[in-house]
Amino acid sequence: MGGVSLMICTTCRRVAGEPDASESEACPGARLYAALSALPCPEGVTLRPVECLSACSRGCAVALSGGAERWSYVYAEMDPAVDAPEILAGAARYGATADGLVPWRERPEIFRKRSVARLPPQAV
Amino acid sequence: MGGVSLMICTTCRRVAGEPDASESEACPGARLYAALSALPCPEGVTLRPVECLSACSRGCAVALSGGAERWSYVYAEMDPAVDAPEILAGAARYGATADGLVPWRERPEIFRKRSVARLPPQAV
Repeated sequence: MGGVSLMICTTCRRVAGEPDASESEACPGARLYAALSALPCPEGVTLRPVECLSACSRGCAVALSGGAERWSYVYAEMDPAVDAPEILAGAARYGATADGLVPWRERPEIFRKRSVARLPPQAV
Repeated sequence: MGGVSLMICTTCRRVAGEPDASESEACPGARLYAALSALPCPEGVTLRPVECLSACSRGCAVALSGGAERWSYVYAEMDPAVDAPEILAGAARYGATADGLVPWRERPEIFRKRSVARLPPQAV
């Protein structure tokens, strides 16, 4: 079914419920990427740092895509101190599908509640 | 540079600033698709109706993608009574790029102000 990219906006300066990070602080997006990198990555999933997913007002943002057959998803309001394990669990479930459509109840709660948008597969 | 898909969420029931459409009204997303279909489509751009782009709280939503080399974009808060010509103009500018990155000042104002998210090209 092909590999999956878990994209992390490393320039996100916002964590939901907090003021934007100042220039002198470690960027929340970069912290989220570091937190994800520190955990075992599910088989078939590649972490991919990205500069800006244009969801700045709802950072931290991540996205999942995987080849021309799968729907892509963008999620936001991720907390670098908390959400890394559940993001990886959700990426693994996504990678286990051919079309990217994980049954609603099998999606992590952070994906169900903090979805920003989805895009259809390109190969249709 | 390959063709471009302009995807229109035909199940969007919201127009920004208005209450959700009732079940008995024509769905705003379907009205937006009809408004776009009634205009000349830019060369290389294909209109593609889609059921739900998961941007429901910010409908009407549209998305642009085009092959593995271009960034994809999701836009929201489109008004079916007003925005169709500018959406098509923005799609034409997007289609004129190899990577989907239209210079900021050349983007229609509705795209600059109502961006939801973007996704990097798959071929990186």
